[in-house]
Amino acid sequence: MQNQSEVVKRPRVVIVGAGFGGLACAQALGNTAIEVVVIDRRNHNLFQPLLYQVATAALSPADISEPIRRTLGRYHNIRVVMGEVVAVHPATGCVELKDGEEIAYDRLVLATGSDYNYFGHEEWRKHAPGLKSIHEARDIRQRLLLAFEKAERCEDEEEKRRLLTTVVIGGGPTGVEMAGAISELGRFMIGRDFRTLKEDQLHVLLIEAGPRILATFPEDLSQYASDYLSRIGVAIRVNTPVEDVTAEGVQIGGTLLPASCMVWGAGVKASPAATWLQVEAGPGGRLPVAADLSVKGAAGVYALGDTAFTRGEDGQPLPALAQVAKQQGKFLGMALAANLLLGEAPPAFRFQNRGNTAVIGRNAAIFDFGSWQLKGRLAWMLWAIVHVYLLVNFEKRLLVSVQWIWRYATRQRGARLIDET
Amino acid sequence: MQNQSEVVKRPRVVIVGAGFGGLACAQALGNTAIEVVVIDRRNHNLFQPLLYQVATAALSPADISEPIRRTLGRYHNIRVVMGEVVAVHPATGCVELKDGEEIAYDRLVLATGSDYNYFGHEEWRKHAPGLKSIHEARDIRQRLLLAFEKAERCEDEEEKRRLLTTVVIGGGPTGVEMAGAISELGRFMIGRDFRTLKEDQLHVLLIEAGPRILATFPEDLSQYASDYLSRIGVAIRVNTPVEDVTAEGVQIGGTLLPASCMVWGAGVKASPAATWLQVEAGPGGRLPVAADLSVKGAAGVYALGDTAFTRGEDGQPLPALAQVAKQQGKFLGMALAANLLLGEAPPAFRFQNRGNTAVIGRNAAIFDFGSWQLKGRLAWMLWAIVHVYLLVNFEKRLLVSVQWIWRYATRQRGARLIDET
Repeated sequence: MQNQSEVVKRPRVVIVGAGFGGLACAQALGNTAIEVVVIDRRNHNLFQPLLYQVATAALSPADISEPIRRTLGRYHNIRVVMGEVVAVHPATGCVELKDGEEIAYDRLVLATGSDYNYFGHEEWRKHAPGLKSIHEARDIRQRLLLAFEKAERCEDEEEKRRLLTTVVIGGGPTGVEMAGAISELGRFMIGRDFRTLKEDQLHVLLIEAGPRILATFPEDLSQYASDYLSRIGVAIRVNTPVEDVTAEGVQIGGTLLPASCMVWGAGVKASPAATWLQVEAGPGGRLPVAADLSVKGAAGVYALGDTAFTRGEDGQPLPALAQVAKQQGKFLGMALAANLLLGEAPPAFRFQNRGNTAVIGRNAAIFDFGSWQLKGRLAWMLWAIVHVYLLVNFEKRLLVSVQWIWRYATRQRGARLIDET
Repeated sequence: MQNQSEVVKRPRVVIVGAGFGGLACAQALGNTAIEVVVIDRRNHNLFQPLLYQVATAALSPADISEPIRRTLGRYHNIRVVMGEVVAVHPATGCVELKDGEEIAYDRLVLATGSDYNYFGHEEWRKHAPGLKSIHEARDIRQRLLLAFEKAERCEDEEEKRRLLTTVVIGGGPTGVEMAGAISELGRFMIGRDFRTLKEDQLHVLLIEAGPRILATFPEDLSQYASDYLSRIGVAIRVNTPVEDVTAEGVQIGGTLLPASCMVWGAGVKASPAATWLQVEAGPGGRLPVAADLSVKGAAGVYALGDTAFTRGEDGQPLPALAQVAKQQGKFLGMALAANLLLGEAPPAFRFQNRGNTAVIGRNAAIFDFGSWQLKGRLAWMLWAIVHVYLLVNFEKRLLVSVQWIWRYATRQRGARLIDET
């Protein structure tokens, strides 16, 4: 048996990114005889499925983020490094950090996630932020709340209309969640907190380039979502590609739609892992991988989650979802341990679909389990229970539950903070 | 009887600042026949006594801040304006906002609070922020956590020592609370989360220019605090004025003490209300007021809390404490209502000392009630109960209680977030 306190040559796995996939991989390798180094730009893991609730003032950032060191602190073979990877050198087997430090690996796992895709219009980002980090969620929350404050004091009717118009671009789950939550928050605040604003002055638009929202769901669920959103005051425009985004609003169909708050949720692209490796990327910038998740053309390098391009048993590409990343992370951690410690040949990854969900508003969500579906209040309750359960530890579960129950009873939003002017 | 829905000439009270004093004044005027306008730069009221817990990752900003609109929304005669006052014109009876808007008043209440006093060295502020806003608390939290992350990867012993050195400047209640909390947080994180750091590498210094810390408390309580802080690893240097503050550290006694994180808690000064009025300010920039809190030399203008210079029955200046501001706010609101609606002559304000407290660490606090004192674990429990009770509503009380009980049991700090790199 190896004595862990001695300096012995143990195989080293380096994991870049501590999202759902990276953490699951690290945990599967925890307390083994493998040395594990987890590198992330941030010090915390973010529970992205609830980030829209931070952006709409229902939760605090700390409710859905957990220090990576705390999650991995119990594993004595795991070291956490807060740093930014700028290059990978497969020839010498090391990753290079921004500050010049090089960290050698025997196996490298790239779990760097994805970023919003502005389809070549990076200048749109500053007007219409996406929802990937706490910083962006806080930015959107600030824009929303400030627009209401300005509208309350605005005497120009046209400008008031612009201030009270929010456009969400992209009708996927994030766009639907944001549009529903913004409409509910806005109507609640106008009814309770503001003196000069009327409910019918609030405009929330959800814009989708394709023929229907929630295109990855069955058609009747997406119809249900459309109907529900209309009922809570969200105007939906499908078949409407965005032509331009400026500080003044969004251009669609050749005309400018004036808006003060714009949110981007239209498609993701993989982080620059392909660039680091100088290999050719697959669709969406994702790395093509073999059945064991090894990157083609880079020995000892693996990719998973949003970083990898993988297919399900039906031959369809696997979506960029937390459950895919988590399953692949756990699979890869176990496969690497078996391979490095016992010499076992790597198995092939098989995805198990746990169901796809989106929340639309208070009392409304949809679930698609493939063979059966669920929608409405029951789906919403299931959604809430599942998401509390998926949180990282008991403390977060308790805090989020308490706030949700409180909010459900009172409709109040606790985190309506404009940080600084 | 007046019909409130008609446009009648109702007297208007404008309150600048929605801190403890301003809010108490507005609430005392709530649902009366007086028109009230509350102006604040921020959209939220901040419970400053617990701000040090945000800076040391124990609570989230939203746990201790509440939208002003939510607190005052129930009063139909109160309008909230988010804006920054830049001037007061007593001759025409209006306040001027940064965006040019002028708001007329019949009576004006200045409750603008205080800022940290850098005694003419404003350039020190960026290196050693004070603890007055959420922004600053988050900034300090970020500096602390980042220093630990850097130290974990640092191989230069001298730089590592600098990274793990925190200096708190000023031995008042805020300085003592910060030093104690930083030492406890640091020791906990080193024990649990970091691999290369040792507990004896952490240095927390509390520097005080005067002969003892907590100078406003009786000597035996301040001795108790000194002893307790030493026991939890805070080094205290009294009679030590700070000579310079740079990015590299703090200069005392002619030599530079290298430090990565510096916090300022050395004295406050009133906000620029005296400048707005162009009257001569009293000590600490505070406005001299008569017994009814009216500002001398500015008809219809009142000041309270940290903005006003007032004396207790013993002739001593009243301290810049929440309880003073709250009592003066409530007193002034009632006096203005009686005067404007019933023509009653303004009474004189009398301060009732509710006791002075400071928390030193887990299980240690001090209370000074004048005739009797309390210290130790019992004082700490009383401190916790009082502070939960003083929070603005049931939701905050519940959330903070849950987190404190959880933290007391596990010693974990929930909000260890470094927002963005």
